[in-house]
Amino acid sequence: MAKKLHNRARKAGMAPGTLLYTGTKKDQVPQIHVITYDKDNIHETSGTQLDQCLPPEKPAGTVWVNIDGLTDTKLIGQLGARFGLHPLVLEDILDVNQRSKVDEFSGYVYIVLKKIIWNETRKTFGVEQVSIIFGDGFLLSFQEQQSTLFAAIHQRLQNNQSRLREHGSDFLAYTLVDVLVDQYFIVLEKIGERIAKVEDLIISDPVQHNARLLYRLKRQMLMFRKTIWPLREAVSHMLRVDGNLLTPFTGLYLRDVYDHTVQVIDTAETYRDMLSGMLDIYVSTLTNRLNEVMKVLTVIATIFIPLTFIASLYGMNFVNMPELHWRYGYPAVLSLMLVIAIVMLIYFRRKDWL
Amino acid sequence: MAKKLHNRARKAGMAPGTLLYTGTKKDQVPQIHVITYDKDNIHETSGTQLDQCLPPEKPAGTVWVNIDGLTDTKLIGQLGARFGLHPLVLEDILDVNQRSKVDEFSGYVYIVLKKIIWNETRKTFGVEQVSIIFGDGFLLSFQEQQSTLFAAIHQRLQNNQSRLREHGSDFLAYTLVDVLVDQYFIVLEKIGERIAKVEDLIISDPVQHNARLLYRLKRQMLMFRKTIWPLREAVSHMLRVDGNLLTPFTGLYLRDVYDHTVQVIDTAETYRDMLSGMLDIYVSTLTNRLNEVMKVLTVIATIFIPLTFIASLYGMNFVNMPELHWRYGYPAVLSLMLVIAIVMLIYFRRKDWL
Amino acid sequence: MAKKLHNRARKAGMAPGTLLYTGTKKDQVPQIHVITYDKDNIHETSGTQLDQCLPPEKPAGTVWVNIDGLTDTKLIGQLGARFGLHPLVLEDILDVNQRSKVDEFSGYVYIVLKKIIWNETRKTFGVEQVSIIFGDGFLLSFQEQQSTLFAAIHQRLQNNQSRLREHGSDFLAYTLVDVLVDQYFIVLEKIGERIAKVEDLIISDPVQHNARLLYRLKRQMLMFRKTIWPLREAVSHMLRVDGNLLTPFTGLYLRDVYDHTVQVIDTAETYRDMLSGMLDIYVSTLTNRLNEVMKVLTVIATIFIPLTFIASLYGMNFVNMPELHWRYGYPAVLSLMLVIAIVMLIYFRRKDWL
Amino acid sequence: MAKKLHNRARKAGMAPGTLLYTGTKKDQVPQIHVITYDKDNIHETSGTQLDQCLPPEKPAGTVWVNIDGLTDTKLIGQLGARFGLHPLVLEDILDVNQRSKVDEFSGYVYIVLKKIIWNETRKTFGVEQVSIIFGDGFLLSFQEQQSTLFAAIHQRLQNNQSRLREHGSDFLAYTLVDVLVDQYFIVLEKIGERIAKVEDLIISDPVQHNARLLYRLKRQMLMFRKTIWPLREAVSHMLRVDGNLLTPFTGLYLRDVYDHTVQVIDTAETYRDMLSGMLDIYVSTLTNRLNEVMKVLTVIATIFIPLTFIASLYGMNFVNMPELHWRYGYPAVLSLMLVIAIVMLIYFRRKDWL
Amino acid sequence: MAKKLHNRARKAGMAPGTLLYTGTKKDQVPQIHVITYDKDNIHETSGTQLDQCLPPEKPAGTVWVNIDGLTDTKLIGQLGARFGLHPLVLEDILDVNQRSKVDEFSGYVYIVLKKIIWNETRKTFGVEQVSIIFGDGFLLSFQEQQSTLFAAIHQRLQNNQSRLREHGSDFLAYTLVDVLVDQYFIVLEKIGERIAKVEDLIISDPVQHNARLLYRLKRQMLMFRKTIWPLREAVSHMLRVDGNLLTPFTGLYLRDVYDHTVQVIDTAETYRDMLSGMLDIYVSTLTNRLNEVMKVLTVIATIFIPLTFIASLYGMNFVNMPELHWRYGYPAVLSLMLVIAIVMLIYFRRKDWL
Repeated sequence: MAKKLHNRARKAGMAPGTLLYTGTKKDQVPQIHVITYDKDNIHETSGTQLDQCLPPEKPAGTVWVNIDGLTDTKLIGQLGARFGLHPLVLEDILDVNQRSKVDEFSGYVYIVLKKIIWNETRKTFGVEQVSIIFGDGFLLSFQEQQSTLFAAIHQRLQNNQSRLREHGSDFLAYTLVDVLVDQYFIVLEKIGERIAKVEDLIISDPVQHNARLLYRLKRQMLMFRKTIWPLREAVSHMLRVDGNLLTPFTGLYLRDVYDHTVQVIDTAETYRDMLSGMLDIYVSTLTNRLNEVMKVLTVIATIFIPLTFIASLYGMNFVNMPELHWRYGYPAVLSLMLVIAIVMLIYFRRKDWL
Repeated sequence: MAKKLHNRARKAGMAPGTLLYTGTKKDQVPQIHVITYDKDNIHETSGTQLDQCLPPEKPAGTVWVNIDGLTDTKLIGQLGARFGLHPLVLEDILDVNQRSKVDEFSGYVYIVLKKIIWNETRKTFGVEQVSIIFGDGFLLSFQEQQSTLFAAIHQRLQNNQSRLREHGSDFLAYTLVDVLVDQYFIVLEKIGERIAKVEDLIISDPVQHNARLLYRLKRQMLMFRKTIWPLREAVSHMLRVDGNLLTPFTGLYLRDVYDHTVQVIDTAETYRDMLSGMLDIYVSTLTNRLNEVMKVLTVIATIFIPLTFIASLYGMNFVNMPELHWRYGYPAVLSLMLVIAIVMLIYFRRKDWL
Repeated sequence: MAKKLHNRARKAGMAPGTLLYTGTKKDQVPQIHVITYDKDNIHETSGTQLDQCLPPEKPAGTVWVNIDGLTDTKLIGQLGARFGLHPLVLEDILDVNQRSKVDEFSGYVYIVLKKIIWNETRKTFGVEQVSIIFGDGFLLSFQEQQSTLFAAIHQRLQNNQSRLREHGSDFLAYTLVDVLVDQYFIVLEKIGERIAKVEDLIISDPVQHNARLLYRLKRQMLMFRKTIWPLREAVSHMLRVDGNLLTPFTGLYLRDVYDHTVQVIDTAETYRDMLSGMLDIYVSTLTNRLNEVMKVLTVIATIFIPLTFIASLYGMNFVNMPELHWRYGYPAVLSLMLVIAIVMLIYFRRKDWL
Repeated sequence: MAKKLHNRARKAGMAPGTLLYTGTKKDQVPQIHVITYDKDNIHETSGTQLDQCLPPEKPAGTVWVNIDGLTDTKLIGQLGARFGLHPLVLEDILDVNQRSKVDEFSGYVYIVLKKIIWNETRKTFGVEQVSIIFGDGFLLSFQEQQSTLFAAIHQRLQNNQSRLREHGSDFLAYTLVDVLVDQYFIVLEKIGERIAKVEDLIISDPVQHNARLLYRLKRQMLMFRKTIWPLREAVSHMLRVDGNLLTPFTGLYLRDVYDHTVQVIDTAETYRDMLSGMLDIYVSTLTNRLNEVMKVLTVIATIFIPLTFIASLYGMNFVNMPELHWRYGYPAVLSLMLVIAIVMLIYFRRKDWL
Repeated sequence: MAKKLHNRARKAGMAPGTLLYTGTKKDQVPQIHVITYDKDNIHETSGTQLDQCLPPEKPAGTVWVNIDGLTDTKLIGQLGARFGLHPLVLEDILDVNQRSKVDEFSGYVYIVLKKIIWNETRKTFGVEQVSIIFGDGFLLSFQEQQSTLFAAIHQRLQNNQSRLREHGSDFLAYTLVDVLVDQYFIVLEKIGERIAKVEDLIISDPVQHNARLLYRLKRQMLMFRKTIWPLREAVSHMLRVDGNLLTPFTGLYLRDVYDHTVQVIDTAETYRDMLSGMLDIYVSTLTNRLNEVMKVLTVIATIFIPLTFIASLYGMNFVNMPELHWRYGYPAVLSLMLVIAIVMLIYFRRKDWL
């Protein structure tokens, strides 16, 4: 997070509308992928130059331009000019610290979402920004780096029975959002598994190491929550977008996505509550162990310290100590010690310390 | 929870509208139960095939189709086609991770609720999804497995004096919702009993085992809360459903259900607050016990350590130790020890440690 | 609470509108008390049968029917029939687990409130449900058992100069609500006194017993809060009741009751915050005491353990220990011990442990 | 607080509109102070009887009647009759447990505010109720006891260039409210100074005494917060008062007071958060100290207990202990002890305990 | 903060509209800087007297008057008269304890914002108030002391291709707000770096010093939060300002600033949650260490105390102790001791204390 904030802070003082990529994937060469489709035909091109891929005049049907990699600010500028985008939209596409949001402009809708991908080796998730712009007959999508996430949608588009082919760019936009929100369930599942694991560890073996695991998990949830929290508002805003850009047909599907986002947020909140309950149990277990340790020390010390005192007493070298000369002095002292020890043991047993 | 999330995560990437059962009751063979009734007549059939049970054309009166078991996605599809349901509704019926909600469609209302059943042997509750769809003259209900929950309603329907027979599918829908919400009171009562029990244990015997009981209870409440929380919004949404589908007569009854849901949520919140108060008392009891243990140790050690030192002193083997040869050296030392012990005891008594 | 929930749970599965008393005052024989009054006349009757007390046709002026005891469900049914009440209202009158609420029906308003009475011997409060129904020219009130709470209102009614006599059933309803809300101040005062007492105990003598007192007080506040919380909404709802049933004259008075409820809730919240501050101070006092105990132990042990070691050293029986034979060996060792003790004492004084 | 609640509780059961002073300043003889002013003239009278001070017919310009002392309920009644006030307003003037509020009546506005005055000797603040009623051409103000708070306003009124003289009773009301809210800043400053002082104490010397200071400060903030919290709503309500009673000119000034109240509440919330942060640091300091104490004990005990054991070993009186007769037995044992002590010291240094 | 509150409290009792600077930068001589620009021309003057810098009649285009230093209340008064500002606006410009806010007046908009500048040497941030007033053809900005913050805007203005030159005072106002909000990201980045550092310290070395660092950071976040929190409302208010003063063109840019403020608040909240998570881990680490210390003490004491007792036993001087004369008495006792020590070690290993 610090790194991204650093890039964001670097932007301070620049004129608004200055195009500057604030992310960390700086060596991704932008890949352009253009699909033009309607109910009957579909056509795909890809490359790194815009004019290679995009025909000069607007084709019939829907054009989907997907850009992987945001390092080429000139390319973003060209696209902006081509589709009449506001300079601030271009700036926001490149500023990957945006919160998820939906902004309506005249003629198009701008959607910022977060792609959350689980990284199995580092046991954490990565966050990338995805921008989606859709208007009448076109959809532009921007990702920070290449991924296979939209591959399934490409395939579905190939199938000319697919609902995607029958509906316009708003339905395609919905599909992309749906795919991104579905990823959140996968990440939540992974986090949920880790929580269950740490829960077992915390209860069975409350060592410092596990407290740190817990803390890291908590931080992870904090980040996850911060990332997904604005989503509800964004999708709810999208539901209220003006009817020319969003058909009622797509609206029904979006309502479904909205339900999913609420479900994700709900589960995240429950995880957060579980984690704070786990900290409580961890701390109480620590105190319990301390009690147990202290009881052992106290029992041992309390039994043997008086006995040692008595032994020391008869180890004194006074000339005039009559007991030392009694015939049964030694067994008497031993018996006394035994009685003291037994009384102590009974006392501790009564107190439930043994 | 993890298991259901897993099934949900499996769905990620599939096209919307794909029918996939995400629950765990996978070996339940779907049972179909159809009741057709109006004020004067009632007719029941049941089976496992839709066309066996449901006459091809819509009968007069109200048709109630109840499905127990969601493993046969084809059956769900047939029902959807028959009653003109939206593909997303069919998907949601099968995705049992939905939050409780009420969605209005043209011609019907879709209700998702949770059936919460107390399991006495495992001392916890199970959550299942119930979907209810009602429209003009029909009601469809879907449960994950067979249960006796709706049996009482069947009986009431048999009675032709019953209010159920006089009113349409919206009143039947209300009745089903009412039965489900009533279950929450039963589960709350069980949890309340367990809380009272753990409360006694925590206060009388604050051992680690009880802290874990407390933690498990807390988790249970967390799950219960997560399950019932969306209910308020769902029922309140149902109250605002368009007048053609919901008569004012049923509306009054629904307002009653709404009061019940608020009551359930209230009680659940109070339980949550009680549980967190119990943790506080548990931790303070632990610290109290630690204090008590340490006082015993300190009293014993502080009395005997100086005495043992004095005894050791006169156990030294210096040739030239005049006290050893005094006539009353031994009794003098014993008296000194007694004085020290008494002073210490008075000191501790003053400090209220004894 | 558990007991009432139990009775509530017993109702689950019954048809809505089933009349079942869910409270615990099961041996109260219902007492009926009817007062008919207008500006000039007043007439009282009482008994246990409805037809004894209530004239068959509606008299001029205002009729106030007060029922003490809810065990006779038939009586409730008769009243319902007589005044045209909805079956759900009758059910709610008998289900004493309702939250406080105000429901408008055509022709009458149904108010559920809680009577909170301080029990001085058990040092806690009891909660009972009071139902009030008022419409044009009549007011029905239902209590779980006989009480003297409404006696003052009877007396005021006798006085034909009283504002009560000049105004209709809505003003009588306001007066009943006002009397009930006034009781909350009395209970709050009692709880406030107990909090002040426990606060003194906690600070002066933080033993386990006091922590439990604190916990019980906290639970009490939780119950009080749960009971009064819905009141604000209920009274605010009452303020918005349709003008035919509630005159603007009474509205002004109700606004005053609304202010009182907010004041009660405010004070209850402050008490809650005070109680949680008291727990903090209690736990920190415990830790402080532990520190003090440990300091005593550490000072004593740290001074005498090295001294005892030295004494033991010269208690060894080695043949060849030259110091033992030195002339000033014994005084030298004693001096060494003194020096060590003094150094230790200075060290502890520096650390502020003495 | 308990005392005031007691007086409030005493009122329970009385008829609404009963005039009863619920405060504690019972020996203040009410002082009446009347100022009649317009742009050109100003006239002052004062006394203890209403007819002495107030001319029988309404004078031109604005009349300000200020009452210091609420013990004479008859006087309040006379004023009420004279200015046509609602009985509930009179009751509220005397019931000094009101929350701050603004109520609109036909022809006048009733404002309840709290005067918070810092008491330097008792290091706390006192709360008194101030009631302000303003209508066309008159303003009544009621304080529980005489104070110099409004003296500055008297002086400003004498100056015929003052804005006060040009504007009506609403601007005078604004000025009174402004003076009261300004007092809150003074009290906040005092509390802020005390918080800074306790913060220093807590960090430098976390003894029990300081924890109690902290707790008292917390309670003080709780009371302050409870007192000022309703202010925001009250002033915001005043801003929406009907235009005949409140001119837009005064409205602009009131918006300024509103900003001040929000600022006061903001600062109070920040103080509250600081206090709870201070408790955390206090408790963690205590635990830290405990750690330090225990480390000293452990180091000393762990070094000397084994050494003492060895010394005791060779203090045994077995006849057959060859080591005792070895020539270098004694130095060998001393060396062994030295080695053990050094090893222990190195171990503790490694653990950073020394 | 205390200092500023002190200055604020000094104002209490003064007539509203009294001009008094409540800040701490009292030796800054006010600098006036006037820029007059339109699309084609730009003209700059600066000085310390208003009439030197500002031409007597309103020039064409936009006039930007920037004042650095608020000590000359007369100057503020002159500006107020010149641009027709309300007396309360002038008072608020000088009272630097205002919350961020946007107030609409007829003919102009008054914006209060906070300039937050990171101070690298003191590792904290300073807060200053910036007031911006814009109306048709003019913008006034007031800062407490000179800074280079607006220098970049001066430069951009020089460039006659700049969007600033094409648009009016509302766009200039937006630009100033944008520059101020951008500063918050810089401060957040610095705080974020410090949090990361303290996080490392807390986990690796939980000493008291680090707890205080944490506390100071927490206090810093509290202040930061208090400062930025009102910003969201202020900017959102600005978005709703009447269309004559704020063009839709500028509105789009402001929406962008709004997104940034929400982002800043979001990040600040996340930091706050991280800090409270860090306190938890700190306290649990302390308890863990205490456990570790106590285990060492207990293991050592529990092993050696019984052994020392046995040794003391055979150090007693009873005449009649047969064991002392046994041939293998000494080795037998040594073996017994060894067995006891080994048993203890096994016991502790089993308990996982070693």
